[in-house]
Amino acid sequence: MSCGGVGRKISLDDLRAAHERIRPYIHRTPILTCRTLNEITGCDLYFKCENLQRTGAFKFRGASNAVFSLTEEEAAHGVVTHSSGNHGAALASAAKTRSIPATIVMPTNSPAVKKAAVRGYGANLKFCAPTLQAREETAAAVLEETGGVLVHPYDDERIICGQGTAALELLEEVPGLDAILAPVGGAGLLSGTLLAAKLQCPKVRVYACEPEFADDAYRSWKAGAIQPVERTDTIADGLRTALGTKTFPIVQQYVDSVVLVSERRIVEATWLLLERAKSVVEPSGAVSLAALLGSDLACELAGSKVGVIISGGNLDVASFLETSSSLA
Amino acid sequence: MSCGGVGRKISLDDLRAAHERIRPYIHRTPILTCRTLNEITGCDLYFKCENLQRTGAFKFRGASNAVFSLTEEEAAHGVVTHSSGNHGAALASAAKTRSIPATIVMPTNSPAVKKAAVRGYGANLKFCAPTLQAREETAAAVLEETGGVLVHPYDDERIICGQGTAALELLEEVPGLDAILAPVGGAGLLSGTLLAAKLQCPKVRVYACEPEFADDAYRSWKAGAIQPVERTDTIADGLRTALGTKTFPIVQQYVDSVVLVSERRIVEATWLLLERAKSVVEPSGAVSLAALLGSDLACELAGSKVGVIISGGNLDVASFLETSSSLA
Repeated sequence: MSCGGVGRKISLDDLRAAHERIRPYIHRTPILTCRTLNEITGCDLYFKCENLQRTGAFKFRGASNAVFSLTEEEAAHGVVTHSSGNHGAALASAAKTRSIPATIVMPTNSPAVKKAAVRGYGANLKFCAPTLQAREETAAAVLEETGGVLVHPYDDERIICGQGTAALELLEEVPGLDAILAPVGGAGLLSGTLLAAKLQCPKVRVYACEPEFADDAYRSWKAGAIQPVERTDTIADGLRTALGTKTFPIVQQYVDSVVLVSERRIVEATWLLLERAKSVVEPSGAVSLAALLGSDLACELAGSKVGVIISGGNLDVASFLETSSSLA
Repeated sequence: MSCGGVGRKISLDDLRAAHERIRPYIHRTPILTCRTLNEITGCDLYFKCENLQRTGAFKFRGASNAVFSLTEEEAAHGVVTHSSGNHGAALASAAKTRSIPATIVMPTNSPAVKKAAVRGYGANLKFCAPTLQAREETAAAVLEETGGVLVHPYDDERIICGQGTAALELLEEVPGLDAILAPVGGAGLLSGTLLAAKLQCPKVRVYACEPEFADDAYRSWKAGAIQPVERTDTIADGLRTALGTKTFPIVQQYVDSVVLVSERRIVEATWLLLERAKSVVEPSGAVSLAALLGSDLACELAGSKVGVIISGGNLDVASFLETSSSLA
């Protein structure tokens, strides 16, 4: 089984097999261009709009690959994960698509709208205290009880391969890209993107974009070893997670640079996407554009053809307006 | 010259020639689908996203067709229009693309952001009092002075043909559509859509969607003659205009029905597009979806394959939140 194996390197064929596997279920999301944003950044930008993916984020790609990689016997017991965010909804939706059970462990303090989304996809919801330990223990108890399969949000080859399919589509549709920018949280999307780009066209530069207020990937990359998360108070709530032991080596091997982005720039990028690109993007999804606003990176990439992965669109517009006016 | 002639019927070839003419300049906008909106409406919806068109609205299609239909000699004197909305920006941008002068007559009370947009495209701005008479007189004076060409926002064959190209793309990409919904203001977009649909596939039903608070098209269609505009206090500010003498006969001949939509439904549709389809759409652009919310039309079209033209995305998100909370 490709992309399901453990302990061996992921190949381009694994990524392509994942793409074939999930193609009937995912949206092939559009790639948009916007003259105004080209003028502002001085680059030729191609936005891969995963905010328009099913469940509103790229997470549906990895979740579908995991769900549809299972044997009939494995699938019968269902899938389990712990997630307060987009991965939970994505796994619930992918499981519903295959008509298998899913249990999502969520902290009791998760937003009501996220609980409702997971319930809407017909998954079982299991609540736990809002700590990593409680999440893992509760998930372990569910696994014990159901005999299901754990699908980690990012530290899983099936997930990495699934997330990499967004970059496969981008590289296929936009020939001659000089660089790709992707946000980094746990690095599922980033490592999939790195593999899709570097195994096909090693010359394409890939930049990881990370909030200053959740800079563990930057520090880990600099140190050459996974560093603990120190602060997670960024508005980009999808990027607050730590790197994984499967994603970090891929990042370390292939990434050209990890670029830090201020909160102000993340808010500015979210606004620009709303007002100029007419696209609803959550702050985590706007971090890649934010990395090009008034930065050294924009100078370095001036005039280049740059793919920008817009990772998700699950923005609460009204709350964002409130928050952004307090940050402005 | 196709689509520039006056007094003869527009043919499918005219529409296709317009499409060829503007193809290098326009965005071929994506057609999006959204499961949640399918579930809400009970239809199989295909959104033609003209909010992602250049200048944020379908108006760029017609304006480009008008500008690129001109002979070198005509073009040298530039183009002129009066518009407080998307057509002014679209004409300014199309003229800039051909490197010819444009003068846009705008009422002094136009929003600053719209004045800035027109200026940003390098057009001359000419202010007038906020009445139709003042707009027409000022435009006439500019024409006299410059020898330029007037490009009416909708009552012009070149404009009608250009606007019809959105439906050409929709019909080409989504085979087997049962119906198309388009908003109606002056009916440039609607009459282009009607021609594109009915001249190719007469079985495709086309519905015009109009705010109750700007119901002149509905009354005109019922009466069989253009009726005066009575009220224009709809939130859908792009649809406040009256029908034209060139657009009305096309509407009268081909439209299957004109459907009225309440303000509450327009706001609801704008919200659904923001939150569920992750798309920034102005209220005028959301009227076609609004026509399917809890309506007889939704019952009539249940289970059908429906193209929904999302006409524009020039929404001031912050003001919309304020207005919509007062309407909710």
